[in-house]
Amino acid sequence: MAYAYWKSGKMDEPSVFDLYFRKNPFQGEFTIFAGLEECVKLLQTFHFSESDVAYLQSVMPPTTDPAFFTYLSTLSAKDITLSAIPEGDVVFPKVPLITVTGPLAVAQLLETPLLNLVNYASLVATNAARFRLAAGPEKLLLEFGLRRAQGPDGGLSASRYCYLGGFDGTSNVLAGKMFGIPVKGTHAHAFVTSYISLSEMKDRIMEGELAAFVSYAMAFPQNFLALIDTYDVIKSGLPNFCAVAMALNDLGYRSQGVRLDSGDLSYLSNFVHSKFCKVAAKYNLPWFEKMIIVASNDINEETIHSLNQQGHTISCYGIGTHLVTCQKQPALGCVFKLVEVNGKARIKLSEDVEKVTVPGKKNVFRLYGTDGTALVDLLQQVSETPPKKGERVLCRHPIQESKRAYVIPAEVRCLHEVYWQNGEVTKPLPSLSELRKKASDSLAALRQDHKRTLNPTPYKVSVSSALYTFIHELWLESAPIGELS
Amino acid sequence: MAYAYWKSGKMDEPSVFDLYFRKNPFQGEFTIFAGLEECVKLLQTFHFSESDVAYLQSVMPPTTDPAFFTYLSTLSAKDITLSAIPEGDVVFPKVPLITVTGPLAVAQLLETPLLNLVNYASLVATNAARFRLAAGPEKLLLEFGLRRAQGPDGGLSASRYCYLGGFDGTSNVLAGKMFGIPVKGTHAHAFVTSYISLSEMKDRIMEGELAAFVSYAMAFPQNFLALIDTYDVIKSGLPNFCAVAMALNDLGYRSQGVRLDSGDLSYLSNFVHSKFCKVAAKYNLPWFEKMIIVASNDINEETIHSLNQQGHTISCYGIGTHLVTCQKQPALGCVFKLVEVNGKARIKLSEDVEKVTVPGKKNVFRLYGTDGTALVDLLQQVSETPPKKGERVLCRHPIQESKRAYVIPAEVRCLHEVYWQNGEVTKPLPSLSELRKKASDSLAALRQDHKRTLNPTPYKVSVSSALYTFIHELWLESAPIGELS
Repeated sequence: MAYAYWKSGKMDEPSVFDLYFRKNPFQGEFTIFAGLEECVKLLQTFHFSESDVAYLQSVMPPTTDPAFFTYLSTLSAKDITLSAIPEGDVVFPKVPLITVTGPLAVAQLLETPLLNLVNYASLVATNAARFRLAAGPEKLLLEFGLRRAQGPDGGLSASRYCYLGGFDGTSNVLAGKMFGIPVKGTHAHAFVTSYISLSEMKDRIMEGELAAFVSYAMAFPQNFLALIDTYDVIKSGLPNFCAVAMALNDLGYRSQGVRLDSGDLSYLSNFVHSKFCKVAAKYNLPWFEKMIIVASNDINEETIHSLNQQGHTISCYGIGTHLVTCQKQPALGCVFKLVEVNGKARIKLSEDVEKVTVPGKKNVFRLYGTDGTALVDLLQQVSETPPKKGERVLCRHPIQESKRAYVIPAEVRCLHEVYWQNGEVTKPLPSLSELRKKASDSLAALRQDHKRTLNPTPYKVSVSSALYTFIHELWLESAPIGELS
Repeated sequence: MAYAYWKSGKMDEPSVFDLYFRKNPFQGEFTIFAGLEECVKLLQTFHFSESDVAYLQSVMPPTTDPAFFTYLSTLSAKDITLSAIPEGDVVFPKVPLITVTGPLAVAQLLETPLLNLVNYASLVATNAARFRLAAGPEKLLLEFGLRRAQGPDGGLSASRYCYLGGFDGTSNVLAGKMFGIPVKGTHAHAFVTSYISLSEMKDRIMEGELAAFVSYAMAFPQNFLALIDTYDVIKSGLPNFCAVAMALNDLGYRSQGVRLDSGDLSYLSNFVHSKFCKVAAKYNLPWFEKMIIVASNDINEETIHSLNQQGHTISCYGIGTHLVTCQKQPALGCVFKLVEVNGKARIKLSEDVEKVTVPGKKNVFRLYGTDGTALVDLLQQVSETPPKKGERVLCRHPIQESKRAYVIPAEVRCLHEVYWQNGEVTKPLPSLSELRKKASDSLAALRQDHKRTLNPTPYKVSVSSALYTFIHELWLESAPIGELS
């Protein structure tokens, strides 16, 4: 495409592309926007190296004009302007997350990398946020997904954006090193099975497990947390754990807790907790009943909701596969659409009205109510006067004429900020923990009914009256000549 | 865990770990093994850098013995032996894909990276192979998934292993450059909408599309392939394409074909093809009816089966989201289990008998019938005499006593080969296109009923009589003392 643009002299035509999605993931009604920092960093380094150009020369048709490769080798993102909603914000369908303005060919070349950087990051951050909502604010959430991610880098992305979405830590040590995410983990079943016995007693299995726990406790006297389901939680794992924890107590150490990786997590966690309470009472060790119970067996969002219904005493979830693969919906489906070229707004029509694009360059506002919750997002043409707090503004559904309402916002926020212009990063990029806080705050400002699991209320995204009229005029211009269809 | 092993002096105990999965993905009965080359390369470079060690020192408890970090800084994979089934082979549940032998702590440290490298690679290669089986050997299959993958590197893994699994090309140009995969692509809707009109005629949309096609044809006269559904395939896209293709023909160029990205792909492809046939007949241009029709709208395996049932003239599929995210099942679920330590076989028990591990170090054989198809995989203890062709061998289900059969193989293949030993790669690693051929050949030697979509026959994985007895003795040893449960 870049070559065809170049060949017809269109490569530098000023163009505007919107990056957005059409539907919230996971049958939910919100999405956490993530991946922006990586997009900005892509622009900083965007170019074709000599070897890139040589490779392209080798695979493009021999009729390709050699001057095109010279053109490619000079390309950079210096003439691109990127505005975006801040990373970590809650976002909704049809609202441009990123708007790219600049030469047509360069903007087009950015399509796939930008989509790649935003799609999975936002998807997995949203998934993490949903797990957080399901588990509640008090539970510890650990990401254990590296082994099931799309390669090593997929695993790093997962750890990074799960933390952004509200997880507390990861078992991916490299992610800890690179991004400063707290690293957490326990031991595996193999650790237990690698110990055979303290001596050759009859009940060898329990002995092997006890030996494993003793060994682990010696290594981590202040952080003793044991996986207790290798053989039998009730008959073996729990008594062995308590024995070692009591011995550590005699030496002045408080143990951390246990992990359950199989079985009925509701029943077992309650059983374990009640045993902890009994020990606490009998030996007057109040901390014993506060030890954590980690659950980690193939847990998804529904498992947590179901556990909440049944009742449990789990204090920490270790979540892998379902979190990082986003099993419920493994792709977000962001698109990158041309909305203006050479000063002319473009519309992409479709028989599916949900797929009709909102043409032209736009401003995006979020209107808030008096209680601080977000009421509606409003798209305007850039030439319009922004909505003002305390002043009535008409918010219209972009397609359906009958859906419209006047809103008097208590607060108005312009969502887009310019992150890249004239070859430079124009805003400081927040740290990962700042982004994590941003995501949490932004979700907190969203009404509860948009966040609930079952039949959540859709959050409204509207257009101004002028933009509504503009969409429908442009749509009419494009009506086919001939019979009704 | 490594610290606890080190602390108790177990870190160098000789151990054997098997990497395997328990269930074929996608409700199928086969899996393509992929990712081995990356595993071997991991062993080549496996170490803790100074900064890794410093980071670990900063996050481990302050009570950690400093000598442990010295130990870590000296670690390498030199004492590890890795044997594996060749990459690209068809593999089945419970059969060790990789067996790692060596010091307990090092082998354990390799668990997560090896699982990460095998899980997604094998999953997506298998998915690609299933798309290939659905589409048939003649169709062109292109991977278009970069924008929906888990970050840039997830996208590279996807392109690489989809090619291994039987795809013909990718739109990921970097994957083309790095792995030599053929790169293929067309233009997007934005290319069409970026052209407004040849002149300001009434029917502006068709004019804009025509202008876009002319421009694309001028850039790629020998490779003209147009996306014809931006406005209306039948009223606009197809006539515009034919006009440009005929004009190119006058100049001595043969066009390539069209792409459909929406609508009823069966109906539209047939409509387009019949139009091509009419033009071919009318103007005596036989090549016109042989032009390719690419389909690319959110296609999954079922879409292809459904299209095959309805009838279509699609000659190429461009597949993205469903391929790279493996939507139907986004994780393979490989595990890495300790099967022997210090010369003693270990068994991991579970209430779910499917999860019971096959203990001890094993040899793996594939027995073939006289027609060259694979009959059964057979696991033996390493001390046993391998099965011989023409000689009867008893193959038993590892758990169920009643399931057993004598097999007389026409051919026997020892599946495992040693890829890494004494700090060196011990076998040449095949090229990606060799692996692709291997996958295709290996699948061809699998009976059709194992490969069919609906209710495929499970391929049998069996154990020798001696191994059967060994499993059950070890299991009995581990029986709990006390009441029946």
